This record gives sequence, C-alpha cells and structure tokens, in this order.
Amino acid sequence: MADEVTLAQYLFLRLHQLGVRSVHGVPGDYNLVALDYVEPSGLHWVGNANELNAGYAADGYARIKGMSALMTAFGVGELSALNAIGGAYAEKAPVVHIVGVPSTASQDQGLFLHHSFGDGNFRLNAEIYARFTCAQANLRNVETAPALIDETLRQCLLQSKPVYIELPTDLVKARIPTAKLEKAIDLSVPPNDTVIENAAIEDILRRLYAAKQPFIIVDGFAPRYGISSEADELVRVTGFPTSTTPFGKGVINETYPNFHGIFAGAAGKEIYMPWVNSCDLIVRIAPLNADTNTYGFTTLTNRNVTIEVDHNGVEVCGALYRKLNIKTLLRKLLDRLDTSRLPQLSPYPDLGDPKRLLDQLAEPARDAFIDQETFWQRISKFFRSGDIIMTETGTSSSGGRDFVLPPQTTVINSALWLSIGYMLGACSGAALAQREMISAKSRPNGRTILFEGDGSLQMSVQAIGDIIRNRLDVTIFVINNDGYTIERYINGMHAGYNWVQPWRYLESARYFGAPENDPEYPVFNKRVENWGELMDVMQDEQLKAGKGFNMVEVVMDKEDAPSSLKNLVRMAAKRNEGGSETSPAHQELEQRVMATS
Amino acid sequence: MADEVTLAQYLFLRLHQLGVRSVHGVPGDYNLVALDYVEPSGLHWVGNANELNAGYAADGYARIKGMSALMTAFGVGELSALNAIGGAYAEKAPVVHIVGVPSTASQDQGLFLHHSFGDGNFRLNAEIYARFTCAQANLRNVETAPALIDETLRQCLLQSKPVYIELPTDLVKARIPTAKLEKAIDLSVPPNDTVIENAAIEDILRRLYAAKQPFIIVDGFAPRYGISSEADELVRVTGFPTSTTPFGKGVINETYPNFHGIFAGAAGKEIYMPWVNSCDLIVRIAPLNADTNTYGFTTLTNRNVTIEVDHNGVEVCGALYRKLNIKTLLRKLLDRLDTSRLPQLSPYPDLGDPKRLLDQLAEPARDAFIDQETFWQRISKFFRSGDIIMTETGTSSSGGRDFVLPPQTTVINSALWLSIGYMLGACSGAALAQREMISAKSRPNGRTILFEGDGSLQMSVQAIGDIIRNRLDVTIFVINNDGYTIERYINGMHAGYNWVQPWRYLESARYFGAPENDPEYPVFNKRVENWGELMDVMQDEQLKAGKGFNMVEVVMDKEDAPSSLKNLVRMAAKRNEGGSETSPAHQELEQRVMATS
Repeated sequence: MADEVTLAQYLFLRLHQLGVRSVHGVPGDYNLVALDYVEPSGLHWVGNANELNAGYAADGYARIKGMSALMTAFGVGELSALNAIGGAYAEKAPVVHIVGVPSTASQDQGLFLHHSFGDGNFRLNAEIYARFTCAQANLRNVETAPALIDETLRQCLLQSKPVYIELPTDLVKARIPTAKLEKAIDLSVPPNDTVIENAAIEDILRRLYAAKQPFIIVDGFAPRYGISSEADELVRVTGFPTSTTPFGKGVINETYPNFHGIFAGAAGKEIYMPWVNSCDLIVRIAPLNADTNTYGFTTLTNRNVTIEVDHNGVEVCGALYRKLNIKTLLRKLLDRLDTSRLPQLSPYPDLGDPKRLLDQLAEPARDAFIDQETFWQRISKFFRSGDIIMTETGTSSSGGRDFVLPPQTTVINSALWLSIGYMLGACSGAALAQREMISAKSRPNGRTILFEGDGSLQMSVQAIGDIIRNRLDVTIFVINNDGYTIERYINGMHAGYNWVQPWRYLESARYFGAPENDPEYPVFNKRVENWGELMDVMQDEQLKAGKGFNMVEVVMDKEDAPSSLKNLVRMAAKRNEGGSETSPAHQELEQRVMATS
Repeated sequence: MADEVTLAQYLFLRLHQLGVRSVHGVPGDYNLVALDYVEPSGLHWVGNANELNAGYAADGYARIKGMSALMTAFGVGELSALNAIGGAYAEKAPVVHIVGVPSTASQDQGLFLHHSFGDGNFRLNAEIYARFTCAQANLRNVETAPALIDETLRQCLLQSKPVYIELPTDLVKARIPTAKLEKAIDLSVPPNDTVIENAAIEDILRRLYAAKQPFIIVDGFAPRYGISSEADELVRVTGFPTSTTPFGKGVINETYPNFHGIFAGAAGKEIYMPWVNSCDLIVRIAPLNADTNTYGFTTLTNRNVTIEVDHNGVEVCGALYRKLNIKTLLRKLLDRLDTSRLPQLSPYPDLGDPKRLLDQLAEPARDAFIDQETFWQRISKFFRSGDIIMTETGTSSSGGRDFVLPPQTTVINSALWLSIGYMLGACSGAALAQREMISAKSRPNGRTILFEGDGSLQMSVQAIGDIIRNRLDVTIFVINNDGYTIERYINGMHAGYNWVQPWRYLESARYFGAPENDPEYPVFNKRVENWGELMDVMQDEQLKAGKGFNMVEVVMDKEDAPSSLKNLVRMAAKRNEGGSETSPAHQELEQRVMATS
C-alpha cells in the first residue's frame, strides 16, 4: 500500500478492519468523490434506491454483523434517513452514518447552497443528529481527523449505537499517513473492579442458590451487549423456568425444556402473571422496558426480587453494582456457579410449552382459510437452524411471538421504535450480512425469511429493488389482509383510512427487474389462500432452498389478528384516551422504571 | 350543525374554511381517532403509502392550491416526513403538518412509550420541527387550543411556510363550541404606511422612467407572495427585456415578445451576462439566491442598480423600504405607472427567443436517438394552457429550463432543496389540487405532466400507488438513462454507484393496482427510443387527453445531458473542492446576499 491514503479511504479501511464489508447509501453531489474510495477499500457499494431504506438496511446489517456503514449526502439525504437512525438509536444498532457535506470553505463562508435553508447555517443537521447518535465527528482538520474517526467508531461499538460523521468535500482527498492504520482501534474495556465484581457475583450466586421460585426473562438487548451465549448458558445450566420478551425472541435456544415462550403479562395466559408475581427471584437479562415490549408495563417485576442485568452493571434486588463490563461478569459468574447448590424446583403451573402446543394442533382442513391464530405456529415447521427470521411490526411481529424456533435461529423484530416499513429495508441488510458471514464461515448456512404486511411493504417497497440489484437471497411472506390490520384493532375497523391500495405484490420480482430464468438467481412467486396451498408451498424444494428471490402472498381475513395483538392494542387504546389499563401496583412500577431508565 | 364539535373536527373545519379539501398522510396509532373526523369535516383522506411521499404530496398540493394538510403519527411517522417539510420550508410551501401524539397524561408521566427513545422526552420531535416550520401549536389545553390553531394556520398562510400542530390522543374528542367557527380566521394584513409606501413607489417609478437599459428577472417566490399577476403585468406593460430564474420558470406569460428565457449567468449564452452587468436598472422579483438558482451566484446583480422586490418590502438601489405588503404596493405602482413616460429602449443584443429557437429546430430524423439538447424544446409542443408541468431535479429540471411554455401553464421545480424523489410525490398532490380546482372552476382545464428520471422515480415510487388509489390524472415522462446522470457529470461518469437497478417502469400501473379496462380511469404506457416514436406518441389522442394514468418511458443515452446542466455541475464540482468558480466581484456579491438574506 502507498505511504499515504486519502481521508475517505482511511475511514473506509478502518470500517473494513472492524468487519464491515458493505456500505449502504445513496449517491449525492456532496458525497460522490468519497464514493470513489469505497471499492478500492475492499467494500461493496450497496446502492439503495432511497435513504430511508438505506438506513433501515444498514440497521439490519448491523444487527447481524455487529456494525454497518451508511453513506448519505448533506441535508436532504441525511434527513430522509433520520427515522432509520432513530430506530437504530432506540434499539441500539451500531450504524456508522457518514454524511458528505459541503466544503469547509463553503461552510465557513455561509454560502447560500442547495440542500440547506440558505441561512448560512451548516450545523442544523448535525445538531439534530446529535440527538440520534451516541458520538459525532465533524471532520474539519486533517491532523485530528484520524483520531476523531477512531474514537467515533470506538464509541459506536462500545455503546452499540449509531454515530455520525461529517466528511466535507474538500477533505475527501486529504492525505493521511498509511502508518496510522497499522495500529488497530482500541476496543478494550477497562477491567472490572474485582472487589465490586466479586461482591456482585456473590450476591447473585447466593440468591440463585436460595431461590424457591425463580424465573428468568431474556430480553432483546442481550445480543447488543454481546451476552447472548451467557444468557443461553444461564438458562441451560440453571434449568430455571424461562421466558423471553417479544424483543428477546430467539436470543436463547428455545428448545430447552424449561423454556415457556413469551411472558405476555396482562395480555397472556391467565395463570402466568400471578405466578410470576409470586416468584421470589427473577433474573431480567438486558431488558427493554417499553410499553410494547412489556405488554403495557404488566411484565415489569418487583425490584425487591429482581436481578436486572444491564449493559454496564447489574442491580441485585435493589443494590446497583455499576461500571462493570457485564459480559466479563457473567462469564465469571457462570464459571463459579455450582449447579449442585441450585434449588430443586417445586412443580410449577403449566406456563406453556411452545413445541407441545404446536404438536397438539390438529391438522387443518386443506380448504380452510388461513387464520392468524395458528398460522405463526404452523409456519414454524418451515424454519431451520441458521435462518434469520424477521417480523415486521403489526400482525407479523405479534404473530411471530408464537414461533416455535429451532436452535441457532436469529429473530429480528422491533420492540420500541416500531417504524412500519423498517423490516423490508432491514431484510436487505440482514440478508447481505448473512451472505458475507456464511461466505466467511462465521455463520451457519441459513436463509433470510421475512414476514411482512401489505401496508408495511408499501412503505419501503423499493427495498425489493435493492435486494434484486444485490442478488440477495430472501424469502418474503406477504400477509395480504387489505390494509393496516393492527390499526383496525386500535381504531377504525371498517374505516377507509385503514385500507391500502391493492398492489400486485407477486409481480414485485418482475417489476423491480429480477432476471428471468437465471439459475444463479431464481425467482419464486406463489399466492396461497388456504391451508392446503400453504402446506404445499412449504414443501416446495425451491422455496425450502431459499435461494434467489422468493415471495409467498398469504391471503388472510382483514379483520383477523392474533389474540395477543388484540389484547395489546386494547391496552394502548385505553392509554391514548388518557386512562390507564394497569393496576395501581403496576403504575407504581412504571414510575420506577421511568425514574431509573 | 351541533352546538359542539370535537377539537379534531374544529381543526379540520378550519382547514376546510381556508380552502383545503384533502388531507394527506398515513394512519398511525396516535392519530387514528382523529382520522375519524376527516371525512365528516368535508375533507378527503388521501391515504399515502408512506410519510415522505405524503409530505411531498402535501407540498405539491400547497403549491397549486395555496395550502395543504398533512397528518402523521408521533415519532416515526413525523420523522419520515421531515425532509419533505424541510423542502416546504426552504421553498415556502404552506403545509399544515398535524401530528397525532401520545396523550397529555402519558407525556406528563414520561412513559416509556413506543416511537420514542424511552427517555420520557416527548419534546424532541417538536424541537426539531421548530427548526423546520414557522409556527407551532402544542395543543394541551382545550380552552386555548382553538385560538392557538387559528394563529398557527394564520401564520402558515401569511408566511407561506409549513407549520406544526401536535394533537394529543386525549384531546381529539375534546368539545369545542361550534360558534367559535363562525368568525373566519383573520388573514388581513395591516395597511401599509402610506408615507413609506408612496416614497417607495415614487422611487421605483422615477427609476423605471429614467432607465436606459432596464432588465427584469422574475423568480419563483412570486406565487408564494401572491404577486404573480402583478409581475406578469409589470413585464407586459413595461415591455422591458425579461428573463426568469430556473425557479421562476412559468410565473409570467412566456409568450411576450420581451421574454428571453432563463438568464443562466456564467452557464448561459455568452452575450447575456455582460449585457446584464451593463444594465442601469434591474428589477428582481421575489428572488431565491441559492447557488443552484443563480448559476453559482453569477446571476446576482449590482445592488446599486437593482430593485429587489421581496415578501415584505422592496430595496430600491440600496434603500430598503420595510414592513410593506408587497402585493398592495405593486398594485398601486401598476395603477400609477404612466407607460407613456417609460423609456424608448435602444435595440439590445439577441438574448434569445425561446419560441423562435424552437421553430428554427430542424425536424429530426425519425430513427435518430432522442437527445437531451433538443428534447426539452421539442416536447414543448405537447403543452397546452392550463397544464401543470413538473420537472424533477436532475436532467429534467435542467432541461425544463428550455421549455417553450404556452400562457397559463404552471411549472413546478425545486431550486434550493433539490430532494430527488420529491417531484413524483408532489405530482400526486398537484394533480389532486388541480382536480379539485377544475371541479370548483377556480383553474382552467389542464393536465398534470411530470418529467422524472429513473433514479429519482425509484426514490418515491410508491407515490404511483397513491396516484392510482386516488384515481388522479397524470402523465409521466420517465427519462430512462440508466441512473443518476446529473451525478455522473459531477463525479463518476462510469462509476457503479451512479448506476441504478433497471426496473420495468412501464409496468408501474399494473404493479400498483391500476384498474384494467376501466373507461373512467384509462391507462397508457409506451416506451419511445427515437424521435419518430416520440413524435407519434405526442399525437396519440389518449396521451393528449391526459386522463387516467399515462407513462411514456423515454430512453436516452446515459452520458447525455443538457449543456446548461454540464455547465452548472462544473461550477458545483469546483466549489466542492474548496475553490470558487466566480470572479472576485461575484464573490463580493455572494457575501452581500448572505448578509442580507
């Protein structure tokens, strides 16, 4: 390599060192020259059709691969991506958002430039992004730029949140000594204070050994904190009854006998919530306490009996042990755990066994309509280890809570930001990350399978063009129920505003330019209207292989929804009216959560 | 009508009183109940596929009709629309953005709600929108809400800029006395100070009478300030040589003999700029001084000889007369203008005569490739009075500067914000506004005709679904040149990042669910690859009628662009490198413009 690289290349090579292999984004006049350095840095240019989808895709890629890059242009481009970065920030996806901005000279002169309001203010967008990212780099000085880039990328990974980098056009080609790339970015975390760490571990162990009625709730930030395998091990070795939250679906191996599906609080099985509330020890791992992830806050637990494992600390029944790397702590905890000292559990009520429930389902009549109540269980037979399964917000994410998952599957859903349209974009990013990782042998073989509503597909449909452009292997189940059914349950069951224009979804591959009769990129399209057709399609060899572009349009009744969704929206509607659906005790818990979150 | 209406209905009825007949937007859980009051208030619910397109459409509707409404939901929905509202703010389109937000109780308790970061901060989005709108209403109190709504709508119209209204779920059904609707919102402006107004008028008249080499430049804010007809009259009665800026295209009747096309400064005809710089009087009407609208600031003129007509005042060769309603002033000016005292103009150079240039064009060979250099002139023969002609940023907006327009045509382009993807969304809003106005006999019959690039169409393609859902009559010329040609000229002529996935554009109507064989909504699709095919299609009766959904895919070479575009991007590229393409004199002018804008 030459003695010097451009600043743009420095940035891209740093991303490459951190495992990024693709850059999502859209070209624009303030970022074009920088794009000349993407491919020379060993990165693939994705070339999304618009910025919001590029942002969604970068988020999806980051959730699979651990980091991603997004490139937009100043003003219009970056603002179109803002909602996507908001989702990444809310749900902690480490996306590096690089914005090509006007030259420092133009900025300093306050020129009346396009993509601005013409008021000479070039800080507006950065000020907004400072609220949506955990670190920002305004590159203006070639001397300090490399260190600023390094620190920003470091924060992205350590905090698992998006960051924002402004690259002015006149600095793109600034020369940086190549030697600066030799030393890797320092990603080490300071060692834990052993006295505090030991105290926390002893405190936890003592409670694990003493518990009479323990319960574990695994939540969806576990992969972000890098503790999925520790969570899985804790569940396995303790044998404690375990559930996940909606967001935590798929984090652990859900075939363990002590796994009982999702704890749905007031929206779930009647026996479940009182039993949880009578537990004497609850371990909550990497929680996200949003209304939508806690069933209107009804799955929050009594702090006096709760061990709450967070990113940088653990609260043990009221005692907060701070500034601890939680992965290190959990590793030590598991190493020290003496399983012989764990309690013999008394029999507990039937909280639910997803696998058994699925096995007990009677075979449906072939000509019967496909119903939301059992579809999500039955479709689970289609899944295999290695699959990435994505459920768009709406009936899909609600229904997906009933999935019976093989081991080593990855589920992506949204549990806080809930931006409808996100999942199709994220699907393109996740499929790309998966392909890169399978190729690098860092993930097992598997497919990317998306469950998407018709209304949500419409939001971000050009992502299908991105999928085809990049020849990504995806399987999309489009739930066609003539509109926004989740919203029909909130308000307006028969209102025109919940209806969407009916598109010819199955012509997507054709419309977005998929090749015809290309064995390297096959296309599969099928509409199913009853159980027989669905079961046949699940046996189709091409669909099972998941190669190329595959779409199954599943026709369902527009007023059908999983019962958990019906329960959930009933609670939300009540809150919207200004009332509360929860008991005074739970209201008190809500207050606590807010005060500490 | 009942004695009371809900607060939501109060808002919608006020919009109705101000001429709004449709509400753009997307349903979401925090706005659903409010949507129940849209149609009972006599408004049509558009039901866009996503929020960015809804925002674009609202902007397009506002540019035609003078005001529009956009409804999104808290957080994700409103953030997706931000870039559209940014464009409306930059280019002064009066859009009322109504956001359904969580109940005041939920906000006050700081609940950990979806569509937020969970930090209890419910002001974040409003703080952002305060930078993108000219007035904001955070409705929290039923007593003050009506007055707050009234004042916000008033500012929207008076300033011709977007406004932002937060409607919490618990206030949607709050009761408002119907009597409050009886008194119309006061849109009057204070009368001008007659002494100052007279001084300004005398100053202007004196200079008009004394001018030896006068020149008028009409810019695109004239319709926003309501002074298009006054601008037109000034051009007609003075007979002064006149040009428009790119943004001002179509504001006046361009068939006047003293109209000379667009003044393109350093990017234009060689003779033009020195002649303008030697003028002793220049009238600039409603200017927008962006780089892209002034050809890199080279059309800015010497302040000593310039009368600059702005929204609330006029600067006459350095003397600023402030706080004047400019429409009133211009009306009086025109009434007092004694045309017999106007100068007899000496012959001036041939600045260009768009009509003659078109007539001089030799008939092209039928089998010759369609070129960018003459396409925009030749296609002008397709236009008729009453048409709305929209040109997307890129080769279309550059090329559209060569249009030879019949009287009473409306051109929409973007001259500052330049968000690619905007124009297709805006087209759906403009076509809807046009239909409503034709039906109300407040606009002549005419078509909505859009010129759109392939890359830009991909950005916001679901707007075609919105067009079809609402059965809007549109004609779209898709310039298919395999990608982002405007960007190819800036950088990367052969780079992969300027290539876009080829879609099957002509299948749009089918894919997005257009009816088949419906005489009420006919569909027309045609691909043209040479001049003969294009000329045939221009004679097609169905296309000429412009009813239903019409698309012509015009294939052009991917490295072809209008020469004005090539000149323009050469200047922009230079600025991006940190240099400047302008003379020191023009740099001085830039500084001035920035200081006063």
